[in-house]
Amino acid sequence: MAIKKCVSIIGSGNWGSTIAKIVGRNVLQMESFEDQVRMWVFEEIINGQKLTELINKKHENVKYLPGVKLPPNVVALPDLESCCQGADVLIFVLPHQFLKNVCQALKPHLKPGCYGCSLIKGLNRVPGVGVSLLTDLIRETLNIPCAVMMGANLASEVAEEKFCESTVGSLDRSRGLELKELFETPYFRISVISDEIGAELCGALKNIVAIGAGLGEGLGYGENTKAAIIRLGFMEMKRFIFQFFSKRGLQESTFLESCGVADLITTCYGGRNRKIGFALATTDKSVVDLEAELLGGQSAQGVLTAAEVFAMLHDRGLEAEFPIFTMVHRICQRQEKANVFIECLRRHPAHICFYRSLGNN
Amino acid sequence: MAIKKCVSIIGSGNWGSTIAKIVGRNVLQMESFEDQVRMWVFEEIINGQKLTELINKKHENVKYLPGVKLPPNVVALPDLESCCQGADVLIFVLPHQFLKNVCQALKPHLKPGCYGCSLIKGLNRVPGVGVSLLTDLIRETLNIPCAVMMGANLASEVAEEKFCESTVGSLDRSRGLELKELFETPYFRISVISDEIGAELCGALKNIVAIGAGLGEGLGYGENTKAAIIRLGFMEMKRFIFQFFSKRGLQESTFLESCGVADLITTCYGGRNRKIGFALATTDKSVVDLEAELLGGQSAQGVLTAAEVFAMLHDRGLEAEFPIFTMVHRICQRQEKANVFIECLRRHPAHICFYRSLGNN
Repeated sequence: MAIKKCVSIIGSGNWGSTIAKIVGRNVLQMESFEDQVRMWVFEEIINGQKLTELINKKHENVKYLPGVKLPPNVVALPDLESCCQGADVLIFVLPHQFLKNVCQALKPHLKPGCYGCSLIKGLNRVPGVGVSLLTDLIRETLNIPCAVMMGANLASEVAEEKFCESTVGSLDRSRGLELKELFETPYFRISVISDEIGAELCGALKNIVAIGAGLGEGLGYGENTKAAIIRLGFMEMKRFIFQFFSKRGLQESTFLESCGVADLITTCYGGRNRKIGFALATTDKSVVDLEAELLGGQSAQGVLTAAEVFAMLHDRGLEAEFPIFTMVHRICQRQEKANVFIECLRRHPAHICFYRSLGNN
Repeated sequence: MAIKKCVSIIGSGNWGSTIAKIVGRNVLQMESFEDQVRMWVFEEIINGQKLTELINKKHENVKYLPGVKLPPNVVALPDLESCCQGADVLIFVLPHQFLKNVCQALKPHLKPGCYGCSLIKGLNRVPGVGVSLLTDLIRETLNIPCAVMMGANLASEVAEEKFCESTVGSLDRSRGLELKELFETPYFRISVISDEIGAELCGALKNIVAIGAGLGEGLGYGENTKAAIIRLGFMEMKRFIFQFFSKRGLQESTFLESCGVADLITTCYGGRNRKIGFALATTDKSVVDLEAELLGGQSAQGVLTAAEVFAMLHDRGLEAEFPIFTMVHRICQRQEKANVFIECLRRHPAHICFYRSLGNN
């Protein structure tokens, strides 16, 4: 009898718990996988009880995904090492800022031949270099391959089993198809592409554009303006990705996958980054105060990503070619008033470029 | 002294009147154009007064764009022949169904060397052939070149001077740049591309997708599902255009212009086609009854376009490759219940196609 593979999920927020529900059910149908799915939980005490114990008793993440049942073969563990030991597939779905320490803690305990799949949206800042991918941190620290899954996936709607789609980016075809089998359900449809770099970068950069979309709304502009912000932001995403990551197997078609245009749309019409942008245009408060007030202290990822991207553009003198990325950062830092945002769109390079689009063909 | 050129606008609905406002102001700054801009108005009697006389006296289209002042050099005329005689640039912005008769009436009166620019979104059905472009009707009937202007442009917001952008598609560069000068303002930014066919087709086909977006909302689905409908509809638009019009200078980049993705987004979040889709999912009424009730008897362009596109797909047995186009038509005709719409998305060919996207690279 062949030895079965094992999946571990590193992270247990609302998205991590939603994915645990899906993967937990799917492995039961897969001959090649063990039934048990381990999920690493950063231990907390909820009304005197440990969160891991509550999850394992109630089969529900009462703190981060209340009201949604997890399959009983999903087991919550507070210890990272015992959660990941012997795992063949490691799904990373934890807040960006914990990734580095988690990778370092994991390093001595990995099973040879295992691989990762990141669901985290963000970028690392590397002083002197610019930005680097979160998956590169995983690849380089752990010396394993790492795919991604990114898409237009507000966690609460996926947890409610409302139809949507997502994109797996995997340089390796067989790992890509295995991940599709782990993630796909009748309500959650997966496309698999080889361009893992483009997929990950779209997932990070779209949060900056969503702050811009919120600014436009907050300034009193309507649907036309919003569509222009989304489109011009999309052009900046594409330009940035091709300019700085062109050697890494990018494909134009990635931008039309769920991880590209669809995720951008969802994020610009819902979610926290849009909310912060709206508030930046309608109040004089700082981002920190707005995060405390509107997001219960959680950070809006787009604010961090904008700062990282801005540093890279600034070092190279490229601000004028990326007016949305630049101006969103300056407005987040309160270096510019929100109402100058629309001015930067009027002089956007996409309109100056006569008789050709910015596209690559 | 060089003879100056003349612009005539054929049509005076809310979009036509908005464009008359813009062009009327712009020609005053252009050395090469006459100040007077003629606008053809289908004569109506409003409280005992002729609409043309009201427009020329009040400098306002009191019926179709109330509250917005037109420049006094815009002159409304009820007679098509005198409106267009001697015109060098003819801007077509009238309801689709009147175009054929207008072209036939215009034919004997055109100035040699004139050209057209169409702002009309729709398609013609040609029995036995499939669909044809409205601009081909203009080109073939009048034997003149014809550019287009298409974009994410809800007329009322453009009339209020809220920032947005649009796309001029013109096979000829100098006509394209002349149209940019006629249309561009600080709040209405124009990109010029050569792909006039792709731009026009995006403008027509997006209305079908918008009915789909409305169906999703009416069925109670959320943002993720809507983004999936928009993206999968976008893939069908692209596939349809490349499959049937590939010989006519299409460019991939057109889909990322305002006439492509941005217009699609705006239409899926606002406008009549979305509204009809929503009502089809939440009532048992026919499209005709819904148009009477919700749109004051105006037609939802997407219903007609879906019928024309469906006929073409059906003749060629291609329904399964275009599930959104097909199902939107069947639901509009009440041949299928609205709640089967999501089922067609689950089996969408974009998800079956492993390890490659539907894109062309």
